[in-house]
Amino acid sequence: MAEDVVYVGNKPAMNYVLAVSTQFTRNAKEVVIKARGKAISRAVDVAEIVRNRFMPEAKVKDVKIGTEEVTTEDGKTIRLSAIEIVLEK
Amino acid sequence: MAEDVVYVGNKPAMNYVLAVSTQFTRNAKEVVIKARGKAISRAVDVAEIVRNRFMPEAKVKDVKIGTEEVTTEDGKTIRLSAIEIVLEK
Repeated sequence: MAEDVVYVGNKPAMNYVLAVSTQFTRNAKEVVIKARGKAISRAVDVAEIVRNRFMPEAKVKDVKIGTEEVTTEDGKTIRLSAIEIVLEK
Repeated sequence: MAEDVVYVGNKPAMNYVLAVSTQFTRNAKEVVIKARGKAISRAVDVAEIVRNRFMPEAKVKDVKIGTEEVTTEDGKTIRLSAIEIVLEK
């Protein structure tokens, strides 16, 4: 089965919390929360809110950090930090 | 020996990159980068800049996320997401 991924961007954290919870409700065993740049802090918030408020049985299986190259609209290549948080129930 | 910890706050990332590099220059085997709230994104930047630009031999040994309770100046208790990144050389 395809990996269940939730990309965290600039919307309120609760939007993504809902997305993660929905994946688990659909019987996903693992959900991967991904973010880049300033959204990284929000991705950690999302994982922590899911665990503390909605799914106390969920565990952080893995956290990876890295750097991704992104091409902007004007053709420049910039490097952004990235995070991947794997939650499992 | 005491753990070498660099707390990442609101200053430019390069300040903390320098702090981490200095610890390694003083023969630390591991340096722990810690941050809370919005500074979490910057902590990931710091770890990635150290690895990509200054110490290609450094590895991310562990990344932990969690929630910490913080008491504000007016006596309120708030919960903040937190991150700990362990770099080793």
